[in-house]
Amino acid sequence: MVSSLRLPSLTSLFSSPYLRRPPPLLLRPHHHHKLSLPPLTTAFSSQTTSASTTENPKKQTNQDQKVITPRSQDFNAWYVDIIANAELADYGPVRGTMVIRPYGYAIWEAIQDYLNVKFKETGHSNMYFPQFIPFSFIEKEASHVEGFSPELALVTIGGGKELEEKLVVRPTSETIVNHMFTQWIHSYRDLPLMVNQWANVTRWEMRTKPFVRTLEFLWQEGHTAHANPEEAEKEALQMIDVYTKFAYEQAAIPVIAGRKSKAETFAGADRTYTIEAMMGDRKALQAGTSHNLGQNFSRAFGTQFMDENGERQHVWQTSWAVSTRFIGGIIMTHGDDSGLMLPPKIAPIQVVIVPIWKKEDEKTGVLNAASSVKKVLQSAGIKVKLDDTDQRTPGWKFNFWEMKGVPLRIEIGPRDVSSASVVISRRDVPGKQGKVFGISMEPSILEAYVKDKLDEIQSSLLGMATSFRDSNIVDVSSYDELKAAITLGKWARGPWSASDADEQRVKEETGATIRCFPFEQPQGSKTCLMTGSPAEEVAIFAKSY
Amino acid sequence: MVSSLRLPSLTSLFSSPYLRRPPPLLLRPHHHHKLSLPPLTTAFSSQTTSASTTENPKKQTNQDQKVITPRSQDFNAWYVDIIANAELADYGPVRGTMVIRPYGYAIWEAIQDYLNVKFKETGHSNMYFPQFIPFSFIEKEASHVEGFSPELALVTIGGGKELEEKLVVRPTSETIVNHMFTQWIHSYRDLPLMVNQWANVTRWEMRTKPFVRTLEFLWQEGHTAHANPEEAEKEALQMIDVYTKFAYEQAAIPVIAGRKSKAETFAGADRTYTIEAMMGDRKALQAGTSHNLGQNFSRAFGTQFMDENGERQHVWQTSWAVSTRFIGGIIMTHGDDSGLMLPPKIAPIQVVIVPIWKKEDEKTGVLNAASSVKKVLQSAGIKVKLDDTDQRTPGWKFNFWEMKGVPLRIEIGPRDVSSASVVISRRDVPGKQGKVFGISMEPSILEAYVKDKLDEIQSSLLGMATSFRDSNIVDVSSYDELKAAITLGKWARGPWSASDADEQRVKEETGATIRCFPFEQPQGSKTCLMTGSPAEEVAIFAKSY
Repeated sequence: MVSSLRLPSLTSLFSSPYLRRPPPLLLRPHHHHKLSLPPLTTAFSSQTTSASTTENPKKQTNQDQKVITPRSQDFNAWYVDIIANAELADYGPVRGTMVIRPYGYAIWEAIQDYLNVKFKETGHSNMYFPQFIPFSFIEKEASHVEGFSPELALVTIGGGKELEEKLVVRPTSETIVNHMFTQWIHSYRDLPLMVNQWANVTRWEMRTKPFVRTLEFLWQEGHTAHANPEEAEKEALQMIDVYTKFAYEQAAIPVIAGRKSKAETFAGADRTYTIEAMMGDRKALQAGTSHNLGQNFSRAFGTQFMDENGERQHVWQTSWAVSTRFIGGIIMTHGDDSGLMLPPKIAPIQVVIVPIWKKEDEKTGVLNAASSVKKVLQSAGIKVKLDDTDQRTPGWKFNFWEMKGVPLRIEIGPRDVSSASVVISRRDVPGKQGKVFGISMEPSILEAYVKDKLDEIQSSLLGMATSFRDSNIVDVSSYDELKAAITLGKWARGPWSASDADEQRVKEETGATIRCFPFEQPQGSKTCLMTGSPAEEVAIFAKSY
Repeated sequence: MVSSLRLPSLTSLFSSPYLRRPPPLLLRPHHHHKLSLPPLTTAFSSQTTSASTTENPKKQTNQDQKVITPRSQDFNAWYVDIIANAELADYGPVRGTMVIRPYGYAIWEAIQDYLNVKFKETGHSNMYFPQFIPFSFIEKEASHVEGFSPELALVTIGGGKELEEKLVVRPTSETIVNHMFTQWIHSYRDLPLMVNQWANVTRWEMRTKPFVRTLEFLWQEGHTAHANPEEAEKEALQMIDVYTKFAYEQAAIPVIAGRKSKAETFAGADRTYTIEAMMGDRKALQAGTSHNLGQNFSRAFGTQFMDENGERQHVWQTSWAVSTRFIGGIIMTHGDDSGLMLPPKIAPIQVVIVPIWKKEDEKTGVLNAASSVKKVLQSAGIKVKLDDTDQRTPGWKFNFWEMKGVPLRIEIGPRDVSSASVVISRRDVPGKQGKVFGISMEPSILEAYVKDKLDEIQSSLLGMATSFRDSNIVDVSSYDELKAAITLGKWARGPWSASDADEQRVKEETGATIRCFPFEQPQGSKTCLMTGSPAEEVAIFAKSY
């Protein structure tokens, strides 16, 4: 069933009266087809700038040929194709490592910019802890060492000499943070101590996947110490709330926030809160976590303070993190067969302008108009890219920027210049429905229109993802129903008060785990789907990344 | 000669009509004295909030006692004291590692914010390369392996298993960058490729010093590839110029920019450009470097492109870096016996407001005024801190924020409230000369005054550092004069065309190295100070960090 769709040659494009109005079928790849971006053809530039064609006889190279597996055909292959073709990341030379390329890194910068502000607003300061942790530190907290020791990378040689104590390349920093906190915390007046760091971390994962699970990744890790358990709990909840808002309002991902089961709780935490996102293949992605660490690390490291009554107590702590994995979540939530689809609020490029001209005498007018439209939008704070190269055809550019997930495309041709208007296409609405002609170039009108459309796309992406999520969560009241839902690839939500052993059994028999006990719980009395005993909460089960 | 200066007790402070006008001798530590910040006394708070005194019997703790070695007495001890007391950094648990605390990290963020904009303006994109580099990569470029292999940290165990190939924890990324560039660069149309990363790097240094030389440090490393040597040279020069402007305009450090001698050139570069800063002890600090790598790495890694004539060529490359070492440079350029002195443009706190009240009925008025002054300045984009705790006396706060290097202090007492004015003190002008009374609280007047003063301080710091630098560079025309200058602790500038062996001899005999051949060269013919042969350039010799 897999056939290959070649994009039309330029000749056929130019035979239509306007390049921007080719039959949508031709320009837009469809499900169950392989999308090949056209090899760079010289047809267009030879019509317009014959000089450069003569200069560049090798313009036609293989690297210009991009093939993206349809999402519906093979989700994983599609994911990897998108990452390669949208130039988000590449494999590093060491197994399981990843190079984050500028376009992917710009998404990370958008995440950083938003979260950094929120972290500071909620009273946290950035700082930096060393990444080398003495091996003995990891062993101090019993469940922590159990959770992390299989995944450690160890430095054993430094400056040409075997080290006396092996050094752990941080998989997370709770241990070294506590070592330092003992030096900074003396009295209740030193509390709360609330810090965050943006850093790289290393976990020796066996099965890796770009962004989702890599040997080294980038993240932020917040660490706080408090004078009482209530404050720590409040902080852990506050931070999962910051993540939830980020997911909804910026990434347009309708995550489900809740509490992890004991089996899925962070190694060393009393309670782990999580945001769980449904990917396009309906697998769950744990997109951010916030841990109430209780006194587990403070007891292991002796992180104590003198309270207001002059008594020595161990501090109560939290830690919380979001990583470059989130970028994987964005790709797998919004992408489609045409490629990436980015929510405007985190898109490195929100608007791409593609100028279109046939004859050389049209070029200057079109490029001037395009460049003044660019200035208008730029000075309105919109992230805009003018793709004015004549190395590529407009058709190629349409596909390329769609594949890169740019929310809005502005097309400007000679007729638009005459009528002082532009054509605007939405990435999220395919074909003609997403295309509006004759939007005035008048700065205030254009700016307002573009901002309005970007807002619309932002909510539309959230809306689509929410519908998708909701149509794929099944309420279940028995283990059979749960199994049926999981078999269909859906999420199962049902009352749960069974044992850890039962939870393990579900995992072994269905491949699904408890993703969380969601904060939003249905009203009324509940009966455990597994045991028939009373249950206080529903849990969500799903297969996950 | 070392005596200890205790700050006056509050009783004596309060006996003067106004706390803000004690004899400057008492509040300001002098050279050849040890400055002790007062232990936290309860005298002040017992006058105002007796309740909290009863609650907190342990308020008086040792940690409140800060001792700073005078700079003039022991520069190194002073430096380390400043870092500890201003809470810039702390030692990590692994030898030679450093924890960058929030106040120190905020300086790094100011450096990042400025440079990030400049990097993007000059066409660079941020991205991220993995930190683990296969050991074989390091061996590919001959002088690179020679320069770096003694300093490597090696991961030999991952996921519980001995690795087949040892992994280098990046000391710098030229090797892995080239490995990736070979995959991204095919044709001249892929050039220039200009990227930057903000990352941690590891060098197994034997003698470490906070910020200046640590086992792990933070930096940015730019990497570019070009289609011809001229462009690479232009880029290398452009980036050293970005660093020079940053040093002068933001950090108020009058660096000398120039070219390194062959012996001091980066391992793997054709040419290294540097900015050299004179520290308060007159030692030189290499504060940033930009390398023209020529084709050394591209040949070693086969980083080739097809040029416009269809010929395969190796790319020409640059790399350039500034690190957290720069923070050490800021401390050692501007600090004095009272502590840190920060240039306003990179100060995490530009203005601190210290409210002063004696009687409880004055408190509300003073705090209200202080808080509205804070709002005025904040909304004018000024980084302002209101220190309204009643755990500390105003005298303690004055010293504390001076020690933290805050450029401006605003004092507000009951009389100021009555007259709707404030008292403003400059960090860079000691005592009464730096203090101005009766500045109106009227928002536009106050804002203009503060901005003006911050600008004045910014230029004043640069001016002071420039005078200091210029009075400590001696023009020499013979080796004897060079030795005499170095013995006096100064920098020597003289014509140089002698051999690498002669350069080595100077190093062995005087401890000084060629810091650079400065871009700014004196006119006229020159005679090598060592050989008497004609010389084309003067070089600067100095002892260095």
